[in-house]
Amino acid sequence: MKKLRMGMVGGGAGAFIGAVHRSAALMDGGIEFAAGALSSTAKKSLSSGRELGLPDDRNYGAWEDMLERERSLPEEERIDFVSIVTPNHLHFPVARAFVEAGFNVVLDKPMVHSSEQAARLIEAVEASGVVFAVTYPYTGYPMVKQARHMVRRGELGEIRKVVVEYSQDWLATRVEESGTKQAEWRTDPERSGIAGAVGDVGSHAENLVHTVTGLEMAGICADLTAFVPGRRLDDDANLLVRYENGAKGVIVISQVATGEENGLSLRVYGAEGGLWWRQEEPNYLHFKPAVAPEQVLTRGSDYLCDEARAAVRVPPGHPEGFIEAFANLYAAVAAAIRRREVQEPDEALLDFPTVYDGARGVHFIEKTVESGRSEKKWLDARWDGIGRSRRV
Amino acid sequence: MKKLRMGMVGGGAGAFIGAVHRSAALMDGGIEFAAGALSSTAKKSLSSGRELGLPDDRNYGAWEDMLERERSLPEEERIDFVSIVTPNHLHFPVARAFVEAGFNVVLDKPMVHSSEQAARLIEAVEASGVVFAVTYPYTGYPMVKQARHMVRRGELGEIRKVVVEYSQDWLATRVEESGTKQAEWRTDPERSGIAGAVGDVGSHAENLVHTVTGLEMAGICADLTAFVPGRRLDDDANLLVRYENGAKGVIVISQVATGEENGLSLRVYGAEGGLWWRQEEPNYLHFKPAVAPEQVLTRGSDYLCDEARAAVRVPPGHPEGFIEAFANLYAAVAAAIRRREVQEPDEALLDFPTVYDGARGVHFIEKTVESGRSEKKWLDARWDGIGRSRRV
Amino acid sequence: MKKLRMGMVGGGAGAFIGAVHRSAALMDGGIEFAAGALSSTAKKSLSSGRELGLPDDRNYGAWEDMLERERSLPEEERIDFVSIVTPNHLHFPVARAFVEAGFNVVLDKPMVHSSEQAARLIEAVEASGVVFAVTYPYTGYPMVKQARHMVRRGELGEIRKVVVEYSQDWLATRVEESGTKQAEWRTDPERSGIAGAVGDVGSHAENLVHTVTGLEMAGICADLTAFVPGRRLDDDANLLVRYENGAKGVIVISQVATGEENGLSLRVYGAEGGLWWRQEEPNYLHFKPAVAPEQVLTRGSDYLCDEARAAVRVPPGHPEGFIEAFANLYAAVAAAIRRREVQEPDEALLDFPTVYDGARGVHFIEKTVESGRSEKKWLDARWDGIGRSRRV
Amino acid sequence: MKKLRMGMVGGGAGAFIGAVHRSAALMDGGIEFAAGALSSTAKKSLSSGRELGLPDDRNYGAWEDMLERERSLPEEERIDFVSIVTPNHLHFPVARAFVEAGFNVVLDKPMVHSSEQAARLIEAVEASGVVFAVTYPYTGYPMVKQARHMVRRGELGEIRKVVVEYSQDWLATRVEESGTKQAEWRTDPERSGIAGAVGDVGSHAENLVHTVTGLEMAGICADLTAFVPGRRLDDDANLLVRYENGAKGVIVISQVATGEENGLSLRVYGAEGGLWWRQEEPNYLHFKPAVAPEQVLTRGSDYLCDEARAAVRVPPGHPEGFIEAFANLYAAVAAAIRRREVQEPDEALLDFPTVYDGARGVHFIEKTVESGRSEKKWLDARWDGIGRSRRV
Repeated sequence: MKKLRMGMVGGGAGAFIGAVHRSAALMDGGIEFAAGALSSTAKKSLSSGRELGLPDDRNYGAWEDMLERERSLPEEERIDFVSIVTPNHLHFPVARAFVEAGFNVVLDKPMVHSSEQAARLIEAVEASGVVFAVTYPYTGYPMVKQARHMVRRGELGEIRKVVVEYSQDWLATRVEESGTKQAEWRTDPERSGIAGAVGDVGSHAENLVHTVTGLEMAGICADLTAFVPGRRLDDDANLLVRYENGAKGVIVISQVATGEENGLSLRVYGAEGGLWWRQEEPNYLHFKPAVAPEQVLTRGSDYLCDEARAAVRVPPGHPEGFIEAFANLYAAVAAAIRRREVQEPDEALLDFPTVYDGARGVHFIEKTVESGRSEKKWLDARWDGIGRSRRV
Repeated sequence: MKKLRMGMVGGGAGAFIGAVHRSAALMDGGIEFAAGALSSTAKKSLSSGRELGLPDDRNYGAWEDMLERERSLPEEERIDFVSIVTPNHLHFPVARAFVEAGFNVVLDKPMVHSSEQAARLIEAVEASGVVFAVTYPYTGYPMVKQARHMVRRGELGEIRKVVVEYSQDWLATRVEESGTKQAEWRTDPERSGIAGAVGDVGSHAENLVHTVTGLEMAGICADLTAFVPGRRLDDDANLLVRYENGAKGVIVISQVATGEENGLSLRVYGAEGGLWWRQEEPNYLHFKPAVAPEQVLTRGSDYLCDEARAAVRVPPGHPEGFIEAFANLYAAVAAAIRRREVQEPDEALLDFPTVYDGARGVHFIEKTVESGRSEKKWLDARWDGIGRSRRV
Repeated sequence: MKKLRMGMVGGGAGAFIGAVHRSAALMDGGIEFAAGALSSTAKKSLSSGRELGLPDDRNYGAWEDMLERERSLPEEERIDFVSIVTPNHLHFPVARAFVEAGFNVVLDKPMVHSSEQAARLIEAVEASGVVFAVTYPYTGYPMVKQARHMVRRGELGEIRKVVVEYSQDWLATRVEESGTKQAEWRTDPERSGIAGAVGDVGSHAENLVHTVTGLEMAGICADLTAFVPGRRLDDDANLLVRYENGAKGVIVISQVATGEENGLSLRVYGAEGGLWWRQEEPNYLHFKPAVAPEQVLTRGSDYLCDEARAAVRVPPGHPEGFIEAFANLYAAVAAAIRRREVQEPDEALLDFPTVYDGARGVHFIEKTVESGRSEKKWLDARWDGIGRSRRV
Repeated sequence: MKKLRMGMVGGGAGAFIGAVHRSAALMDGGIEFAAGALSSTAKKSLSSGRELGLPDDRNYGAWEDMLERERSLPEEERIDFVSIVTPNHLHFPVARAFVEAGFNVVLDKPMVHSSEQAARLIEAVEASGVVFAVTYPYTGYPMVKQARHMVRRGELGEIRKVVVEYSQDWLATRVEESGTKQAEWRTDPERSGIAGAVGDVGSHAENLVHTVTGLEMAGICADLTAFVPGRRLDDDANLLVRYENGAKGVIVISQVATGEENGLSLRVYGAEGGLWWRQEEPNYLHFKPAVAPEQVLTRGSDYLCDEARAAVRVPPGHPEGFIEAFANLYAAVAAAIRRREVQEPDEALLDFPTVYDGARGVHFIEKTVESGRSEKKWLDARWDGIGRSRRV
């Protein structure tokens, strides 16, 4: 099996999420870290690249250089895909440029700053035909795939209610002023976009609900707060949701919920069963059929669906975590890229969030912020991209 | 110590909550079950009373008979208090009659059908000076008292957010048509009042938040649903709340959440700490200070506050449950009644929900239903009873 | 339903377990606390009785007085049974005396000091035909009854291994010297008997295994320790066990395991399934069939066995605890006593530990202590009482 | 930072643990998979190597070829270390040969078949001065490092008792006859050695206790069983242990405990505190000081010790699992190898099990099997290697 070459934009020394992307890409042995423009200045980029062992000739000072040189290489030498892990404001220009140049792209979420940008990016992806993924890693967990399988097969009956939450506490104080780089750009509207917590963690919650249930939002009612004095973007938000099928939803979002580490959780209640999953205990899925004992399904078990079983590295009882979920997304992207070359993909692996999921997320952020500012109870939150086919 | 004599209205054979009240009253040995008018017809009342061992002369066919005869007895013979556990629509007339006759009263929640009735009942209680308690038993749990102690002392700092939930699933199907008495009256507006789940379980959630935090609601935004076809009252409701101090709240209520048994839980997030408590695991309270490991406080431990320690029967690790929480309420009522006689009460026990808590709950139900019908996002939910002194 | 009259020996003011017995007896409304000789001196006995509301004519200064006077009363007036909750060394003389006088008896565990005493007590019980129960309350939990049902029905297949543990930490320091009455007599060989932790908590572990599985011990290998300097009885013990069917067992016992509150737990592994139960979370039973997801069975659910459903007061999700488990034992004793009068017992309730269970426990303590002193690896631990019919 | 080149012996297609070793080695980006002799026949080796992307010239048909050719390469080209992941019977010859040729070695556990082999391997390692690690991955978990830190610093006081367990169920039926390669060699004395479950999982339990507490075994008393008919090695074992300081231990081992997935857990009880850790929930460590609430320490938190903080990739609440623990071991080995080149190691990372830990594990297995066959209660289990300095 040929190794795929990954280029990276952003993710230099000190950037938390860049290291996670690299571990996720490398751990299964099918991808090598081949090139990068890792930081916002040439000096920092080159220094980071050296530290991470990039060869000098592919250690770029700027993403534009990487784009130019890599496209000039023979096809069999150039990078197979680029992974973009910059602050949000660079997502759109960098992603569009690489897509238009015909490179496959892995892009961090939230995809772009606006639905208008999202539409243009969709257009570019459809025109170029590249593989394009947005890194919502939480839906890469095997037990989320199992939850999706069970809901979609109807094991819960008609879905009535969804309660999803993503609560953290790392922004409970004014850390953006104490030199925490992660906090600085996330609380800065110029770089983060129109939303704070809603974009940073709320969008994961939205993606988790939609991935598992397929429910489409009809209306939302949001209450956004910036609790920490001086903060310019929301650090807390709570939403009531109405879905198209009549189901009701509650979305709880916070980055100031003291004591919460990375509290993403989902509960789905149907007429015939209920499901629970917590990201902090990701190897377990709880299922309660209406008239029988609760079941605790465990990652790696034989009784799980194909997609859940394909996304596993070690047997039950050997915990997998966040990086493995992330690696599942990279493995699926790699499989999609290879599918264009060989004709034997493992269908169960072709399973990752696409440009459409990214656009749906941007729509969610926009509508949430709009509702937060509105006196009206219910804001129409229907997304006009529904019905477009899933695409890798 | 003299045993107090309890009379009971409602709670005849087959009524779940009546038996709980009796166990709670009897288990500490300070109360005896002395009289009753236990059901809606004389025949059923008398038969229930006989089965439960009431003496014939105090086994009444109707609550009016009990009221009349007991008040005619010499003070040292008559019942010391009456416990009213009928369906909701009888709460007001029965409670008012006993209060006006000078009897101490324990009344099931929701207290009455309307704020107008609540005001008249408050008036009667204040005029008569009787001991009057409303049975919100969940705040009788020792670890809830500990939570209250910690929040009120400021151990969490300024409170920013509250997430409270009360989800059950026993009304997920149309059980009211299959002969389940409990379901019949609870889903019938004539007997249950203007709300279904909001009154039956939501009011406990409201009482829990207020008891622990003391926060006063400023505005609410509610979405009520009747999921089960043909049901006339809400069986699900979700609320956004704004509190007077700027804190935000989320209240999740359901009786159709398949898989939830009696899922009452509370989380309180302050600037300097967070608290978690779940009714289904009531002997534990989780506290996370901002810069130190999470602590798991356990019922019965020496490091708890006076009120929490006073409300305990067995050492840590010997679980106490729902009936013990309920019994704490009865013990506190008994202490209040005795206080009027002897002058050595244990102050830590004088701790139970009063007619004002009951009125606050009725206000919550009214405002929630009103908001559910409103197009307006935020409904003013301030309660005009704030500031009235707590009274036993 | 006629109330049964309970007399009590021991359990005066300040005795933890006496109050538990009373709450357990009283909470279901079928038993009244009618008489008592509550302490070791007449003065303390009478004072305790007054405080607890005993009528003067049945507030005795000594158990011998109570025995004499009660037996002299007409049958329809005398106490229906006596509950003996003294320190261990009084169990045998008091219990034998009441049994021989024809009184039904509830006796705390460990039943007596020696197998020789046990044999004499069995003889007396068989001769008199009284109802005789030993208070192993942990097997009164509904989910233990469910576990027993499942194991006995073969749902786990042939049992291969049992791991049972009872760990506490309240004797981790030399509390017997700081005025803790509970600790004083439990660490004194004169009053406690030949064993410390082995008798006080280990015997519960043995009873739990036998009750659930029916396995008979063939051999044991024990290691006993007194960790706290100066302590004369074991405060920690660990055992390997071989059962007659070839199954293996591990019994972990401690009262110095810092951090353990009341850590009684049981795991049973069969060829086709496994079971877990923890006393500190008693409302749940975990069952793992060999080829399917784990199930979490909950107290109060319709799918449970008759015995488990009969031993429940409140619906699923409303926790029951230690006192309710204890109350199940009293309810069963009361049912047994009534069965002799009326002929409509609820068979599912006739379920409590008998004099034979008590004797088995004494045998376990003796053999464990003997093994602890032996150089031999395996000590024959077969009990010669096997095969005697269960008797109430 | 220069990438280290890893060669691998064993771990070809279909071998579970080989893939884990590779993911662990690759995920941090500091090691590349450069060479291998991956299977027991040349044909299977070469085919596995091709599938895994090894270059043809370093894809060897036999480990002897790899050893010969790699040692003939210039030092700056040859593999930096070899990872040996064959069935147990090949550990000794392969490891010794590479050590004697001057290669650094990572070797799977149990290290070798006998203490005699262990002594010879220690001799070879000491003579050659290579870096030599034995893969006990469970002690690579950050919270195990934290536990070690707390016990060694005396936060629990004098250690009195240890309860360690490693229970699985994958050998509960006769899977060795159904073509499961993992089961075949593990139940075959020729390849597995003198022990089954005791060697396969029990040795991890021993390593965990010793790593965390430093306690040295003085005596053991073991009961081994082969429950599955026809099985020639133990599939279950239970041990009582006496440690040199007077502490007592219980070791519970099983591969037939139906329902257990990978149930490795440790509890340590000291005079002043207790600790709990479960491998299936590895991101949490529970600490109970004698007179204060239980604390739940979480991986990634600032309050942890240096070693625990150095062994972390993602923030609290983002779970890390088994592969990350394994990767910590590889990262430490890589740091040790680099230390010989550059002089700036991160001391906190130089933390992995050595040849002495491996020898201790072999000693444990031998003594356990010997005790299992003995009529004597206590077998002297002191290890003569105590006091040798830790060496990387």
